[in-house]
This record gives sequence, C-alpha cells and structure tokens, in this order.
Amino acid sequence: MRDDLRPAARAAPESGIVEVMNYGRLREGLIPLWAGEGDMPTPSFICDAATRSLAAGETFYTWQRGIPPLREALAQYHAGLYGRAFSAEEFFVTGSGMQAIQIALAMTAGEGDEVVIPTPAWPNAAAAAGIVGARPVEVPMSFGNDGWTLDLERISASIGPNTRALVVVSPSNPTGWTGTTGDLASLLALARHHGLWIIADETYARYWYGTTARAPSFIDVMAVDDRVLFVNTFSKNWAMTGWRIGWIMAHPAIGQTIENLIQYSTSGVAPFVQRAAWVALQRGESFVAHQIARARAGRDIVCRALAATRRCRFAPPDGAFYLFFSVDGETDTRRLALRLIDEVGVGLAPGTAFGAGGDGFLRLCFSRNAAELDVAAHRLAAALGTAP
Amino acid sequence: MRDDLRPAARAAPESGIVEVMNYGRLREGLIPLWAGEGDMPTPSFICDAATRSLAAGETFYTWQRGIPPLREALAQYHAGLYGRAFSAEEFFVTGSGMQAIQIALAMTAGEGDEVVIPTPAWPNAAAAAGIVGARPVEVPMSFGNDGWTLDLERISASIGPNTRALVVVSPSNPTGWTGTTGDLASLLALARHHGLWIIADETYARYWYGTTARAPSFIDVMAVDDRVLFVNTFSKNWAMTGWRIGWIMAHPAIGQTIENLIQYSTSGVAPFVQRAAWVALQRGESFVAHQIARARAGRDIVCRALAATRRCRFAPPDGAFYLFFSVDGETDTRRLALRLIDEVGVGLAPGTAFGAGGDGFLRLCFSRNAAELDVAAHRLAAALGTAP
Repeated sequence: MRDDLRPAARAAPESGIVEVMNYGRLREGLIPLWAGEGDMPTPSFICDAATRSLAAGETFYTWQRGIPPLREALAQYHAGLYGRAFSAEEFFVTGSGMQAIQIALAMTAGEGDEVVIPTPAWPNAAAAAGIVGARPVEVPMSFGNDGWTLDLERISASIGPNTRALVVVSPSNPTGWTGTTGDLASLLALARHHGLWIIADETYARYWYGTTARAPSFIDVMAVDDRVLFVNTFSKNWAMTGWRIGWIMAHPAIGQTIENLIQYSTSGVAPFVQRAAWVALQRGESFVAHQIARARAGRDIVCRALAATRRCRFAPPDGAFYLFFSVDGETDTRRLALRLIDEVGVGLAPGTAFGAGGDGFLRLCFSRNAAELDVAAHRLAAALGTAP
Repeated sequence: MRDDLRPAARAAPESGIVEVMNYGRLREGLIPLWAGEGDMPTPSFICDAATRSLAAGETFYTWQRGIPPLREALAQYHAGLYGRAFSAEEFFVTGSGMQAIQIALAMTAGEGDEVVIPTPAWPNAAAAAGIVGARPVEVPMSFGNDGWTLDLERISASIGPNTRALVVVSPSNPTGWTGTTGDLASLLALARHHGLWIIADETYARYWYGTTARAPSFIDVMAVDDRVLFVNTFSKNWAMTGWRIGWIMAHPAIGQTIENLIQYSTSGVAPFVQRAAWVALQRGESFVAHQIARARAGRDIVCRALAATRRCRFAPPDGAFYLFFSVDGETDTRRLALRLIDEVGVGLAPGTAFGAGGDGFLRLCFSRNAAELDVAAHRLAAALGTAP
C-alpha cells in the first residue's frame, strides 16, 4: 500500500530527532536535551488567558489571518525590538512556525524548483520542500577554528536556473551560528541578484549572547519591497512549544495569498490560543528575559563540562540554545545518541538529522535548569571519558 | 511582488464563504448561517479538560500521530459506531479536518495529477489540490425531482491516466446528499478498477436524518486493504470548530508517511486540545444527540419557511446541516448573498463557492437554535417574496 503513495510524500524522511525521542521518551530518569524546547511549562499568566477565552465561549472559527488584536500586538512587539514602525497588515498568524515555513515554501517553490539551504540546519524546511516536489540544495557551512562560517561563494555556486528561494536560519538551529549584518546583507544581495525569495527563520532572535537585545536581522538590511518572508514562532520565547502557534511577517501585497494558504491547510488558529499569545506579547518580557538568562547560564555549564573532556569539539554558540559538538573518534553519532540514552540517560539529537555537514555531531539543548544540565553534562563527560 | 509567487499558490482562490463572512462579520443583529458551524460554544465539560491539562503543564511537544489515549479513544468510538473492531494504529490526530485533507492529498496527488471531485462540494479540497499543482476535476451532480444524484457514468468518464484520487464528501456539504451503501460500493469499485485512492470525508456521518444511527460509510463496503483515506474532524459533532483538531483513519502500513507529513506541516496538535477531544469522545454522546436533534428541528423550520415562498427549490437534505437552495429568477447568488446581509441581516454562503453545479444556489446552515432560525427564515422569506 505504501508503494501506491505519491513518491515525494513517501520519500519524506522520518525526523532524525523524533526517532531518538521515540526511542527514549519513556525512560525513567532520562534528561531530555534532544528537542528544541526548555523544561519550563508555559507560564500561568499565559495559560490563564486561554482558560478565560474558553470560559467566554471563544470556540468558533475566526479570522484566517489571525485575530486583529494579536496582529496589532505583533506589530508593536516588532516595533519595540527592531526600532521602526510595523503594520498589523504585515502579520499572519499560523498554526506553528513549521506551518509558517510550509506556507512560505508553498508560495515560492514547487515541482522541479530548487531551494538553497545552508546546513547544518533544522531539517524540517528541507523536508517540507521535498514534499512539494522541490529539491532542497544543502550547502554545508564550514566548521573550523573560527567556528561555523558561511561560504558565500559556495552558496552562490549552488544557485541555478531553478532556484527559487534561500532558507536562512539565524541564529542557527543547531549550530548557534548567527549571521552578522554583513552576512545578511551579502545573502540579500545574492537573492536580489538572482531574483530569489529569502525565507528568514529568526525564531531565535532573542536568544543571542552578544551585547545587544537581539541578533542581527534581515529587517536591519532590507528595503520594504525586498522578497523576504519571515517565519517565526511563539514556541521558544514564551515556552509555548506545545501550543502550535507562530507567524509570518510579509509584505501586505501578498496577504491574500497567505490567507488562502492558511484557509486551505488548517483554516486558522484557535481563538483561545491566540488570546494566550496576545498576553504573551503584552506581559511576557520579564519571562523572556528570565529564559534567556537561564539559557546563557546553561550554555556556560555545558560548554565548560564538555570542553573539560578534551574529546568534544564545538564553537560556543553565539545564539539559539543548542550546543552542537563532535566527539573525537566517534563517527556514528546516531548510534552514539542511542547509546547515551541507554547508558547514561541523556537524550541528544544526532547531527545527521540536520543535513549536510552535520555528520559526526550531536545537538544538545541547554534551555533548562542549571541543576539538571549539570547532571547531564557530567553524565555525558563520564560516558565520553577524558582524553589525555 | 505578487507576480513573483509560485503560480499555483497565487491561483489559490479566495474562499467564497470567507468573502461573504468578512463582508458581514461585524453587522449588528446579523444571523450568521454562512459558515459550517452551529451557535453553541463548546460544552464546558470539554473546555474544562483543556483547562485542567494546561494547569497540569501539558504545554510541551507531543507525539506527532496524536497522544496514545486519544488514538485509543478514536478506535473505541469507531467500534461503537461501525460495529467492528478498530486499532489505535489506524488513527492519526491532525490540526483540523482541513489538514487531514491536505495531508491525504499530499500523499496521493502532485504536479500534473488529477483529483476527481463530485460537486457541489465544500471547496477546500479542490483548492488544496490546486495548491500542490494537481488539477481538481469537478464532476457536477444532477439536481432534479429526485434531489441530488451521483452520475456514475460521468464520474467514470472523468477518470483519465493522470487521475490519482477521488474525493467523496458524504453526507455532502453543501447539498445534504448522502451516498447509499450501493453508491459507495459503486464508487469503490470504480476506484479499485482504476487504481485510485478514495479520500472519504465523512465529517457529517452523525448528522443523518435517516432511521439509523449514522449515514452509510465506506467502512461498510470496503476491505481492510482498500485504498481509502478517511478524513474527519471534531468540529461539528462536539461544537469544536475553533479548536482545529481532526483525524485521519488509514491503514497502519502508511502510518510513518502520515507521521512525517504531520511533522513537516504543523508538527502535531497541542496536548491540551487533545485532552479535550478525548473527553469529547468519552463523555460527549448526549451532547451529540442534542445537537443532531436540534439540527433535525432546524431543518424542518427552514425547509417549511422557504418552501412556503414557492420561489425556492431544494431537496430536503438527507444528511449534514445545510439547506442548499436556488431562488427562481435569481442567477447571481453571490450578489444575492451580499444583498441579504445588507437588507435583512441574514448571512448565507453563495453556491458559487462550492464548484461546478453550485451556481444559482445558496447554502444555509441550520445547526442553530430554533428561535433564531425562525427569525432568519422569515426574514429570508420576506426578502425573497412569495411567488403567486
């Protein structure tokens, strides 16, 4: 029966992250650092907003683009963070950041098209491109003494007549690489030159270990009519991974198409979920600051412990909340991830899940309380041993 | 900028239902019978389950196929309704019935393929097929003295070498036509003969005005290894339209592909929404019975009032909760729908929104309290006038 499915659907890969999660999900005492989520449930002031909305009977169909107050709040949130005015008309509420990516891809690429993706990268964009019949073209970044670097010439060389879009995740999941304003301007110039769309995943903009309030953004370098589709999510900043709500920011000129693609995929987001997201934007800043401080501390804990093994190689991440590291002498990190679940009860994601260039690495999420990270880091160090 | 979008995405039509909703949404005193939803908010015993789950911190990522207890409850629910055993492994929780359709289409049809759809039909399946680059082939049903009838020869003639799937909505939104066991067996035989998938939308199986507990189903006529993908939703039975939760029932052999397509579109459904759906299945039967009785009464009210005008033509629907009617002398029912909003404050959906064969019709949702339906029906009768 499987053979009768459409080949591109059949070829969609099982997530290499979910595979290890399913393997270890129910282990007693396991410290799960495999997924892109922290250990804190959604704060109660956000949950309470959903509860109030449910009690008020907000359980009907609503605006496909999102409820007007949430779109307005997104505009204000961006104005505060990026220092210029935004219009509610630029914002479209989606049923997760993943759905934002799916819609951005559906708008730009289809059968026979190509989408260029610097990797290692969260694998879902490449997989979603494949499902619509496009070819994801992975361009591995370089890992060396300077950490992860973008190879613009290699990206440029990967662009062909069928290339339609460039997916840029900055700060990067999984590597923590974060494009400088110069990097982003260069990518934009490339996209302009070749007439490509940029799909900008700036999910981790706030998780940035530089000295400014947020990471550099395409917003800093673009003109209003540049072809950039921003995809984002409430998942990370406000500990709302389970809620499935994100947004697209795009030029209002393509708003009707975005509305239509929402209509014909999930037909909008639950109004009570949107009310909770609205409260997150209005009252969530101190929680976000707390989460970022926690991630910064977590970064120090895991970097220190794994560096001490002298077997782990990594660049301390500039942004996001992952440590992406290799282990000397370990080449099959998928097997290593399964072994670490069994032997020391620590769940990591294998680098093979993140496309070209991820082989031989493991991803560890450090958005977690210091005590557990400490235990996990020491368990890992013990399992990996110390090089002489 | 719009011109730079992928043509198939750009071509996705604005929903003809949403268009009139957006036109009239904020009118004071309007009775909205345009959408496929009733007037009752979700019952509190269902909402409370979501609230409890939120309070318990169930706000994290969860199983892509749905939480195990919900899949188990779906199996039991089906066993009760269809009189045979089902396995939890056959059920996949999706972020709406619409997403179930999107995933079913992605599994079966892509660029250059064709999908046959008897119409008038809820337009979203055709639109979703178009977005993936497939061609929806609409085959109009006949409307005559016997009501709506399926023209099997016409459907057979519409199947070509590129046809991959047949979308069957029974009971039908918008016409209320409901396939007999014989109709469904004939469609299945056609699909078998041509090697097609059937995408069976049985959303309205419970809203059935015959003498049995539910409408005939492909489940009644198929073998376990037939290529039938069932798409369904919690929206109608349990008044959960705003929640965005549905399911696919399919052979477990294609379960990993369904999981992957969920992963790469919305990555699952909020756990607290799934807990609410679980309670709906466990404790919702008397509410469902109440809703169906109400719809049956609503059907009588609107059929009687519109028949009395002697200008409206329709077949009393066998299933679902819509009256699909034409008005003598009115050909442009999109304009008529807008006029009825302005003049008498009744919101209907134009038949043009439902594909070939829907021209000249209006769809009225009668899943509503009798008092308001009475007012709406009399307003409509007054606006349309009475033929001599």
